[in-house]
Amino acid sequence: MRITDLEVVPIAFRDPPLLNSSGVHEPLALRCVLRLHTEDGVVGLSEGPGDRASLDRLAAVRESVRGMSVFATTLIARAVDAALPGAREVDRAAAFSLIEVACLDVQGKVLGLPVSELLGGRVRDAVPYAAYLFYKWAGHPGEADDEWGEALDPDGIVRQARRMIDAYGFGSIKLKGGVFPPEQEIAAIRALRAAFPEHPLRIDPNCAWTPETGRRVAEELDGVLEYLEDPSPGVDGMAAVARAAGMPLASNMCVHSFGTLAPAVARGAVHVVLSDHHYWGGLRRTQHLATLCEAFGLGLSMHSNSHLGISLAAMTHLAASIPHLGYACDTHYPWNAADDVVVPGALRFEDGAVPVPTGPGLGVELDEAALARLHRAYTESGRQVRDDTGYMRRFRPDFDPALPRW
Amino acid sequence: MRITDLEVVPIAFRDPPLLNSSGVHEPLALRCVLRLHTEDGVVGLSEGPGDRASLDRLAAVRESVRGMSVFATTLIARAVDAALPGAREVDRAAAFSLIEVACLDVQGKVLGLPVSELLGGRVRDAVPYAAYLFYKWAGHPGEADDEWGEALDPDGIVRQARRMIDAYGFGSIKLKGGVFPPEQEIAAIRALRAAFPEHPLRIDPNCAWTPETGRRVAEELDGVLEYLEDPSPGVDGMAAVARAAGMPLASNMCVHSFGTLAPAVARGAVHVVLSDHHYWGGLRRTQHLATLCEAFGLGLSMHSNSHLGISLAAMTHLAASIPHLGYACDTHYPWNAADDVVVPGALRFEDGAVPVPTGPGLGVELDEAALARLHRAYTESGRQVRDDTGYMRRFRPDFDPALPRW
Repeated sequence: MRITDLEVVPIAFRDPPLLNSSGVHEPLALRCVLRLHTEDGVVGLSEGPGDRASLDRLAAVRESVRGMSVFATTLIARAVDAALPGAREVDRAAAFSLIEVACLDVQGKVLGLPVSELLGGRVRDAVPYAAYLFYKWAGHPGEADDEWGEALDPDGIVRQARRMIDAYGFGSIKLKGGVFPPEQEIAAIRALRAAFPEHPLRIDPNCAWTPETGRRVAEELDGVLEYLEDPSPGVDGMAAVARAAGMPLASNMCVHSFGTLAPAVARGAVHVVLSDHHYWGGLRRTQHLATLCEAFGLGLSMHSNSHLGISLAAMTHLAASIPHLGYACDTHYPWNAADDVVVPGALRFEDGAVPVPTGPGLGVELDEAALARLHRAYTESGRQVRDDTGYMRRFRPDFDPALPRW
Repeated sequence: MRITDLEVVPIAFRDPPLLNSSGVHEPLALRCVLRLHTEDGVVGLSEGPGDRASLDRLAAVRESVRGMSVFATTLIARAVDAALPGAREVDRAAAFSLIEVACLDVQGKVLGLPVSELLGGRVRDAVPYAAYLFYKWAGHPGEADDEWGEALDPDGIVRQARRMIDAYGFGSIKLKGGVFPPEQEIAAIRALRAAFPEHPLRIDPNCAWTPETGRRVAEELDGVLEYLEDPSPGVDGMAAVARAAGMPLASNMCVHSFGTLAPAVARGAVHVVLSDHHYWGGLRRTQHLATLCEAFGLGLSMHSNSHLGISLAAMTHLAASIPHLGYACDTHYPWNAADDVVVPGALRFEDGAVPVPTGPGLGVELDEAALARLHRAYTESGRQVRDDTGYMRRFRPDFDPALPRW
């Protein structure tokens, strides 16, 4: 079962003005869909980053993997590495991941088995996700308010949480922080705690805080947070917060690839690794990561970027296969689901969890009309990179993205 | 593709009087062969320990895995764990491993793919093994000399090495030490170095040395050994030797399961992990171990116990799939090959390496007549456990197995 071609289709889909420490989400998020063609006519799907550099890396590996077996993923990883000399580990792993997921989709389709079964079977029938809250503007400047409306203070955040939990049933809450001075974000967390007394809570300021500030926030929110995500930059910053924090520190910034684990473990800088198969080299390599975390006493959760249903399916199969995954996973899906690229029906939320698709492979089918529409949106936008900072500066020219900020 | 039954056949095969720090190998080595039956009639093979406790654990899990999918190996591992409450991690992993390898054999047979392909493809077409030398008596007491003859001094060890390398072409040499005072074993290594100037050399005294002795041997053999294996007991002992040793320390005794890794890493006690899929929970979990070793800057090699061809096939598929495996693997196969349980032809040594079998699954076929003969030998022997010490004491009543000895 050999690969005959990688067909990479860049797409753009609508994204609300979600605020973070780098700026604000632009009106269109970039992504790509891979159709991996095989000699037998079976087509494997996957989804990943759609920025120019990612697309260029995929173009660079396209010829190298032609003719390779969809089972020989280690050999594919080596071919990808060889085709991307000088690329960072995380970028090589991301290019490979897109291919690996599509290979598993093909394997599952050939065998008539869901990907979760190929990964060793599902230890849970549905994967819990967290409500992923953002400070946001009411709508993109110059446009009408979006359906979610404004959230710039604790009341707005609680309103957003209520709406999202009513719609999806989430049992855990994550707030993207690093937007306002820490006192305001602490107040938002306290308001969430009051409104949702039973929901585990997390905040992620994306390294917006100095270690001193991180320690102070950790102290103020001791007993309130399930974990504190990436409070401060670098192993040193995280370790400095960790020494004083009463709750676990989670990270996808200090720890983002296998090469970054040993220093973080040696310094006790991270307690929960936020996995992401898009960056850790695919589904099986993320299972390796899970074993590693278990062996070293680290917790495991899951990170997300703006994504659509192919990624949600892959994340769900993966999370279903990992006993050690001990937290509700992150997902941006509610923010972008209206533009999904898969045929409705295979993916749904029940009580905040996505039942693992049971069809062969990833269990999702491309909506060809949606793909064509989103690809047209990509082409017409002329966009090549994600630029939260540049977009923010159009409205706040003095916005300074330097971190830590407080 | 569901499991209908586990058919475990204990066997005994001839073993020469190989000496080690615990005593001497008995005339028969115990092992078991698993035939894993599926609803479709496909039978998966594997091979593992044959002592009473291992067989009892397999009997205890037999009912639990009936009806499970051969793909759902994570679920099988959980079922094994649940059926063996209170068992050590390494013992649960060993019981699971036997099943996992047979499941992969079934998967490969169904798909028409070798196990190495299921594991991500082979990064090498042949797997190098090391000549595994032992001090030994000329034959078992009361029996005629065996074909290998006596090896009780440097000359005897060099003679044995020559014979084994002439027959198999091995390009690396391992000496099982811990039998004679260290000076004699150092002399044997020096004699090997003189006779085989290009062959990487290792010695494994199985924790027979105090850390002081380990440091002294390390100093004397600095620049001579590729690695020094398990010189001293425990993390403390290994760490004490490691601080002074010029060569890497390897281990399958200080580090033998995922739970033992973190303390050894934290103390810098081990530099090369001697993997063994029979104890690390099967082929895929050993791949996880490889990723972990790579992430933490540890080397990876492979340990062996007395075994036959089914295990050799599994070891070869696994080793072929792991880029990070950087050393020739251990194997006892030359000592026991005459009693092999697989049909000849699929396994052979070329220049010290075993070409990866290319048939479906493990690529080996049971020799039913040999299996029946070896099972009869097991039954007639009445043997239940391996007892190197008890056997040694029949001839040296004052033998004291306490370690460290020097």
